[in-house]
Amino acid sequence: MSIVREKVTIIGSGNWGSVIAKIIGNNVRKYPAVFQESVNMYVFEELVQGKKLTEIINETQENVKYLPNVKLPSNIYAEPDLLKSVKDSSLLIFVLPHQFIDGTLKTLKGNIKSDAKAISLIKGVDVRKGGLDLISHVISRELEVDTSVLMGANIASEIAKEEFSESTLGYKNKDNAELFKLLLETPYFKISTINDIAGVELCGALKNVVAIAAGICDGLNAGQNTKAAVIRIGLMEMKKFARLFYDGVRDETFFESCGIADLIATCQGGRNRKIAEAHAFTGKSFAELEETMLNGQKLQGTLTAMEVHQILEKKDLVDQFPLFNSVYEVVFKDVKCSQLLHKL
Amino acid sequence: MSIVREKVTIIGSGNWGSVIAKIIGNNVRKYPAVFQESVNMYVFEELVQGKKLTEIINETQENVKYLPNVKLPSNIYAEPDLLKSVKDSSLLIFVLPHQFIDGTLKTLKGNIKSDAKAISLIKGVDVRKGGLDLISHVISRELEVDTSVLMGANIASEIAKEEFSESTLGYKNKDNAELFKLLLETPYFKISTINDIAGVELCGALKNVVAIAAGICDGLNAGQNTKAAVIRIGLMEMKKFARLFYDGVRDETFFESCGIADLIATCQGGRNRKIAEAHAFTGKSFAELEETMLNGQKLQGTLTAMEVHQILEKKDLVDQFPLFNSVYEVVFKDVKCSQLLHKL
Repeated sequence: MSIVREKVTIIGSGNWGSVIAKIIGNNVRKYPAVFQESVNMYVFEELVQGKKLTEIINETQENVKYLPNVKLPSNIYAEPDLLKSVKDSSLLIFVLPHQFIDGTLKTLKGNIKSDAKAISLIKGVDVRKGGLDLISHVISRELEVDTSVLMGANIASEIAKEEFSESTLGYKNKDNAELFKLLLETPYFKISTINDIAGVELCGALKNVVAIAAGICDGLNAGQNTKAAVIRIGLMEMKKFARLFYDGVRDETFFESCGIADLIATCQGGRNRKIAEAHAFTGKSFAELEETMLNGQKLQGTLTAMEVHQILEKKDLVDQFPLFNSVYEVVFKDVKCSQLLHKL
Repeated sequence: MSIVREKVTIIGSGNWGSVIAKIIGNNVRKYPAVFQESVNMYVFEELVQGKKLTEIINETQENVKYLPNVKLPSNIYAEPDLLKSVKDSSLLIFVLPHQFIDGTLKTLKGNIKSDAKAISLIKGVDVRKGGLDLISHVISRELEVDTSVLMGANIASEIAKEEFSESTLGYKNKDNAELFKLLLETPYFKISTINDIAGVELCGALKNVVAIAAGICDGLNAGQNTKAAVIRIGLMEMKKFARLFYDGVRDETFFESCGIADLIATCQGGRNRKIAEAHAFTGKSFAELEETMLNGQKLQGTLTAMEVHQILEKKDLVDQFPLFNSVYEVVFKDVKCSQLLHKL
């Protein structure tokens, strides 16, 4: 019996994608019986000081644009052609910005190995025609592959420095989950697996809405009791929302890194909290603050708050989510921040 | 049928006791059909600038020593004689420091109304002859009364300012829980009830051990992923510990204010976190820092860490609680703080 070893492609090469590439490059060498040594990383080609980013990465083993000063293992190969990058690959790691997923899947459709397995590290939900969709489900459907997810309190720069972190892998197929865990876990990056894709993935999206509420508390100079209560109520609404739309969402998921831990980290640091704090403090609009404070980066929380609101409105369930609704009203309806606390 | 209205006594008059007295004084007036208007507050007598504290409180309606600048309702009567304070009382609110509970119960035994009901706001566990005991159980047993508990993210000074907070009331007898909820809840102090005394009460004690671990993270300048992971792992050990020693501990309890919310607040602020941070940063012993930084207040977390360790050692379960054990070793065994992260 000959065993075909898994060939890995990382689709995406931003900050998080590059950190994951570092982990994967090292791990495939640890388990040569399971994985092929050479790992592809699909890189959206761009010029950095007149030179192609893929060439820089392949020559210097450093993603100078998105993860400077960190050496990638020499078995990471940057490839600007998406289809070439996935050729013969059996494990696909999706780690690119939300807005590029549709185009990427369109190109990949019909062009990947039939027995490929995918995992999504993309945070966010998909709203299509007013309905809720998970990005992992979109990948599964479009490519006809099993798709797991990985979410947690995972600030990329800290993991790049090998500081202790945890993460949660949500799966439907346990064998695939164990394979991805082998590929992604390190002593400083501990992964637990749970059979609840929807719960894990929704945590990653909805936490940003709660972080806006936490930031409003900070901007209003609210006490620690209040902020802790807001985070707790937010977690309860995340759980309720997930349950409402998906079967099989588990309580335990919210105790995992993707749940409370990611929520705690996001409500302490993170840009959603920061912009909301500035809004509560200065009264400037979220759009203006996003423009002046974020250096071209986009706020996820406001977009998710809008999408969640559309979905809840359609189902006539807005009143059951006072925190989500208050965030929506503060961001989009000019409602005063202090109202948020009165509605809880 | 004549209805006997409930007479309330608050046993304790520190910072938290005085804040609770303010709430209770107002609430009994809101529900005159249920509660008698006059409320007793047992005050351990002391002299403040040459005058008795009880006299000051009864004349000025202000606990100048433990809650200055906050007026208590005029129906709060400060009483220095413990037995007089509980005469005819049917609702007993225990809110005094842990170390005074034994003496207090000894005096009260056989001297309270047979149909009295109690609630404990005291945080901490009791270790007797190496075994674990809950303070609410000690009260129940000694006085032969049903005893509920109230715990949560409840920094007293913030509640005194009527900032929004939540709290969790753990009960065995639902009717009594509803009565205490009526007595204690306000629009800014929201109470949820749950049939799990042990879970609620252990949260209030064990969170201080986790706060020491969180403070160590801060002192080591650990990243946000790491601190969030430590808090999460701490919550899981709290849950596991509670389950190990008591039946009927519920998952939901840890989602309540007494669980995650109190833990978040305690791991952000609070003296256990602060002293642990200073220890990790300066290397000075906990005892020395307690002496120099706390102005005579005592650290709960180190004591609880010691008690928990004794109990786990006796049952040969230390290895199943790496975080609790690491905190114990850092505090009492001179183990380096950085070891804490390596053990997780």
